[in-house]
Amino acid sequence: MGKIKVGVAGYGTIGQRLADGVAMQGDMELVGIADLAPTLSLQALRERDMIGANGVEYKLFLVDGADKSAFDAKDIPVAGTFEDLCKQVDVMLDSSPGGVGASNKEKYYEKLGVKAIFQGGEKNSVADVFFHGYANFEKGVGQNYLKLTSCNTTGLIRTVDALDRAFGIEKVAITIIRRVADPGDYHRGLTNALQMDKAPTHQAVDLMTIMPHVDATGILVHTPVTHGHIITVLATAKDGKKITKEEALEVFNKHPRIRMVSIDEGFRGNASLFKYARDLGNRRGDMYEIAIWEDSIVESGNDIMYAINIPQESVTIPETIDGVRALMGVQTTREDGTAATNEYLGIGKFKK
Amino acid sequence: MGKIKVGVAGYGTIGQRLADGVAMQGDMELVGIADLAPTLSLQALRERDMIGANGVEYKLFLVDGADKSAFDAKDIPVAGTFEDLCKQVDVMLDSSPGGVGASNKEKYYEKLGVKAIFQGGEKNSVADVFFHGYANFEKGVGQNYLKLTSCNTTGLIRTVDALDRAFGIEKVAITIIRRVADPGDYHRGLTNALQMDKAPTHQAVDLMTIMPHVDATGILVHTPVTHGHIITVLATAKDGKKITKEEALEVFNKHPRIRMVSIDEGFRGNASLFKYARDLGNRRGDMYEIAIWEDSIVESGNDIMYAINIPQESVTIPETIDGVRALMGVQTTREDGTAATNEYLGIGKFKK
Amino acid sequence: MGKIKVGVAGYGTIGQRLADGVAMQGDMELVGIADLAPTLSLQALRERDMIGANGVEYKLFLVDGADKSAFDAKDIPVAGTFEDLCKQVDVMLDSSPGGVGASNKEKYYEKLGVKAIFQGGEKNSVADVFFHGYANFEKGVGQNYLKLTSCNTTGLIRTVDALDRAFGIEKVAITIIRRVADPGDYHRGLTNALQMDKAPTHQAVDLMTIMPHVDATGILVHTPVTHGHIITVLATAKDGKKITKEEALEVFNKHPRIRMVSIDEGFRGNASLFKYARDLGNRRGDMYEIAIWEDSIVESGNDIMYAINIPQESVTIPETIDGVRALMGVQTTREDGTAATNEYLGIGKFKK
Amino acid sequence: MGKIKVGVAGYGTIGQRLADGVAMQGDMELVGIADLAPTLSLQALRERDMIGANGVEYKLFLVDGADKSAFDAKDIPVAGTFEDLCKQVDVMLDSSPGGVGASNKEKYYEKLGVKAIFQGGEKNSVADVFFHGYANFEKGVGQNYLKLTSCNTTGLIRTVDALDRAFGIEKVAITIIRRVADPGDYHRGLTNALQMDKAPTHQAVDLMTIMPHVDATGILVHTPVTHGHIITVLATAKDGKKITKEEALEVFNKHPRIRMVSIDEGFRGNASLFKYARDLGNRRGDMYEIAIWEDSIVESGNDIMYAINIPQESVTIPETIDGVRALMGVQTTREDGTAATNEYLGIGKFKK
Repeated sequence: MGKIKVGVAGYGTIGQRLADGVAMQGDMELVGIADLAPTLSLQALRERDMIGANGVEYKLFLVDGADKSAFDAKDIPVAGTFEDLCKQVDVMLDSSPGGVGASNKEKYYEKLGVKAIFQGGEKNSVADVFFHGYANFEKGVGQNYLKLTSCNTTGLIRTVDALDRAFGIEKVAITIIRRVADPGDYHRGLTNALQMDKAPTHQAVDLMTIMPHVDATGILVHTPVTHGHIITVLATAKDGKKITKEEALEVFNKHPRIRMVSIDEGFRGNASLFKYARDLGNRRGDMYEIAIWEDSIVESGNDIMYAINIPQESVTIPETIDGVRALMGVQTTREDGTAATNEYLGIGKFKK
Repeated sequence: MGKIKVGVAGYGTIGQRLADGVAMQGDMELVGIADLAPTLSLQALRERDMIGANGVEYKLFLVDGADKSAFDAKDIPVAGTFEDLCKQVDVMLDSSPGGVGASNKEKYYEKLGVKAIFQGGEKNSVADVFFHGYANFEKGVGQNYLKLTSCNTTGLIRTVDALDRAFGIEKVAITIIRRVADPGDYHRGLTNALQMDKAPTHQAVDLMTIMPHVDATGILVHTPVTHGHIITVLATAKDGKKITKEEALEVFNKHPRIRMVSIDEGFRGNASLFKYARDLGNRRGDMYEIAIWEDSIVESGNDIMYAINIPQESVTIPETIDGVRALMGVQTTREDGTAATNEYLGIGKFKK
Repeated sequence: MGKIKVGVAGYGTIGQRLADGVAMQGDMELVGIADLAPTLSLQALRERDMIGANGVEYKLFLVDGADKSAFDAKDIPVAGTFEDLCKQVDVMLDSSPGGVGASNKEKYYEKLGVKAIFQGGEKNSVADVFFHGYANFEKGVGQNYLKLTSCNTTGLIRTVDALDRAFGIEKVAITIIRRVADPGDYHRGLTNALQMDKAPTHQAVDLMTIMPHVDATGILVHTPVTHGHIITVLATAKDGKKITKEEALEVFNKHPRIRMVSIDEGFRGNASLFKYARDLGNRRGDMYEIAIWEDSIVESGNDIMYAINIPQESVTIPETIDGVRALMGVQTTREDGTAATNEYLGIGKFKK
Repeated sequence: MGKIKVGVAGYGTIGQRLADGVAMQGDMELVGIADLAPTLSLQALRERDMIGANGVEYKLFLVDGADKSAFDAKDIPVAGTFEDLCKQVDVMLDSSPGGVGASNKEKYYEKLGVKAIFQGGEKNSVADVFFHGYANFEKGVGQNYLKLTSCNTTGLIRTVDALDRAFGIEKVAITIIRRVADPGDYHRGLTNALQMDKAPTHQAVDLMTIMPHVDATGILVHTPVTHGHIITVLATAKDGKKITKEEALEVFNKHPRIRMVSIDEGFRGNASLFKYARDLGNRRGDMYEIAIWEDSIVESGNDIMYAINIPQESVTIPETIDGVRALMGVQTTREDGTAATNEYLGIGKFKK
């Protein structure tokens, strides 16, 4: 069997990283990317002669409404239309702005028989399965349309699913300390304020959709930073079972997409993780793993409490790649699917 | 009986507000304030001819090591030495930098028979009682030395004590989203980072000192803002009892030092509370009440979760004034003591 | 002659402070304020029983489109319609959102013979004179409509006008380091970014409108802070004349609305000025004076360079009050007009 | 002739990037790096098996006072002592903390006959020449010790030197809008404040040391951001000569280390440049070029005013590499020296 042919719709913060992630999969081919306007990210790609991650050329297709002359003006080569791209791919990773994915599905994917994975901005009803690589991989196998959990939910579920498989979790209460903007954003921002969202936060609700046996709730507070959400989680096991710090540590240590860090080592906050990823030489300073601070883990009666760092720009990439594997059925279990993704992305190599 | 004679040592962020709070008590006399250097706050006081809150003149005394010529150079009048001040007061509110309070106790308070209340920076051992006006007023009655809870702990205990008296609380897990600096601070700050503290945070430990029947733990994250900490609290009642949102609301609504607010009304975050206090015309834009967002309250199984805003500069003032009442024994119950403080500070008038 | 009857349209950041400023003028009467919705600022006013600055009751009138039931729901008393207010005033201070002022002029002011002063958000053409109390007071005398300079321009012109009267200025080049939001703003903000505006910045253009003999240009950069713009100014005198630091200092020291400060005294940045104003006990922590850092003043060849702090929320209040005086002709010279305003606002008392 | 053997002392923010820069030079060999403690940056290097830029292995040597067991505990391999490193290199790039460089010179460089380049933290007297690759390359040729200009001065001089060679510059007045911390810094920071430095700022003084025929002064304001200083420059040509915007543009466009950008293209501020460098796939998201906003350039009488973005972490790397070339005399003119550096670093390829 040949490589899985993949396209990426929308070359924004997530789309760029999806393209990079696909370009790194030995068993996938990045057929192309699609966008509407010659953004800074596309100007940067052109400055590198359209060569992206892993030495792969990223061919650019234009979505409906795009003005080709604007691309010509910046010498950005165009390979065709979005329909052209759709016709050449097995799976489209749709990271278009919210709502556009649903429209693309109706206009293109259904008609052309293209499978698709939608990002968090779309409604759940756009997809057959609300998907997470570790929590419900098997539900996605052989489906046509998946919707990925958003960045916070993706990282959160990695930890709750791992605890759940080890101990059986019945309840979680979370506090999301949310970064309010990405580096380079000017259209949204917050200056010297912490901003409240109405509770319960949607990430708790989303967790319950994926893990219906868990009772989840929580509060979200926006903070004026750009590098990584921090979530505190209080998890309660079933039947009054106690989870000790040592037991939790053992579970987290084994997870390929969880990086245990500590303040003592120098990881003083979310900015340390970003700096570390830059120093690793990772493309764009990205990191696929979430981090848990070992010195944040405390026992609360029988419950366990801990703090996670979520690298919001890149955390959903591995689970989306997992989704491609599930949709195409090249792997049919969570173990095999996530292992293949991890191998190609270099995830888990840091584990000793 | 005459007015209680009170002094304030240290005219920093807390000391200024303690002086203002005392100046507003009809049954207390602010004998004077003491400091080391002609800070901006003292320059501002001089520009107002040494007239502070409520039209009261604030007489300035110099602590050991102060250079009087520096005050002369700025035309700031000096009324005497710290010892002079000690000799004229019944109670000293000591808001000196951490460690200086203990030294003052040994050098002055014990020798001159002056009672004192220390702020959060001192060790607990400096005082007879670790004090909170609502949680353990009676323990402070007739004592010589109290230590006040710090700003976060003071506000947190207001809520946990209220729930405890209503339902019996056995466990709390908190996440403190801490403002990292006060307005006007340059010596400390944080730029585009969330910074972790090792768990458990001291505020949880302090709560257990005051309320030993409660099991408390939590995680603290510093954030780059200046107006008000936000704490999320998950409180568990004894014996598996459920606390409903309505029950919690009823309890919070009755507390004079808790202000219920909502996002819908316009209180979108911590900066809204600061703006509101400024618009109220409050001196320095301060607020004595903590706020709880009504639309943050959620049930987590039988537990109740909610978010508090802590106005860090002024929140401890009422409980410190309560402490003066306890030390002097002019009131002997929490109801009477806090009611007198509230009356003079105008607290609770907003309750409908 | 009786007091000048003044109304304020729009009780936002500027409107509140205009109302306070009018309430402090011994020869003016604040007839009322007008707004559209029961904002937090109006909720705060109600909590104080509608009593604003100087013990004055602020009567509330509703502008077109306001829903009275929304005010009733919050127990905010309503005194009438905007038209009712217009009929009772000599001058309306219009601090409505941009564009509404022009509409008000057409619908109400012209028909009812009400004079008006518009804030910076309106187009210059709405008014007879683009006004600054110190730079062109006399041009406003006896007119019907004035437009005030915006916050940065108001403060900037105070300094350039003062230098111009002393030395004759022919050219200024400015860099505006702009605070991006006011305390309590959530609808605009900037997180970890400096944002450029296209040059030349409008404040330089506005300065040339008021002072047409000066060639002005400049660059504006938005910064993620809330307390006070900082402007650096490079001013060139006519005919190659040199301005020394001492000469500049002498001029600035004499200006009632300029406060000379220094880093050595403790004024380390814009947040120090805000803290100082809070410590002065000023309502809302506001300050009417701009500040110039004495230790920022440097000579550049024959030119003089200095840095100004602009308290953006309150700086335009005195010049607007000056405008009322000009419109009504109660004073007819800049010296008399500004002196009367300063006297009532307590400006300049800090001068030794 | 063999490759130039280069070492890097201090693997902090600058040292890491110097090592990367050397690793990219075809005619240089990175013999090793030296540091004191197993920082996060060294932990990241170890996670990549000590492989840095361009596939080069970075051998680690320990400076005096280092505790080898701390490196062993983290499995970081150690190749020897700082003295061992010194004995193997022709030139040491010393990016130690301020003051340590002078001590290294005395203890090692002079005794062992090692040439060295010191970073901005050292005193000028440590070196034979205060060096800038474009402004005074020839002065460094054949010397033993150079001191590099700091990040702001390096970028600033690129522009002033270019204008000077084209038009003859006699005076500049600058405003530095300084980022207060680097990404990942917790030990310094600023929260909701603009902080003033006393004028004149040292960068203006440093410029005059390098370009003594120019009269320079300026004001520096610290701002709470991490990505790139912005400097506004007002430059005056000799003899009253006018510099037009078109002339300035032509000069800037030709400079390999100046990138012309515009708000219209999407470069809305300093964060856009950082995002762009990340999107380019540059290691650590770094950029060697400064940027000038085309739409910031304005004429002020005969003078020209413009705004520069300084990528503070990486801007000094090319000029330091230039310094190696000068010291070793492999090139003897600014044209040849900077051209070789640019070629290996890929600088100027973006020019059309």
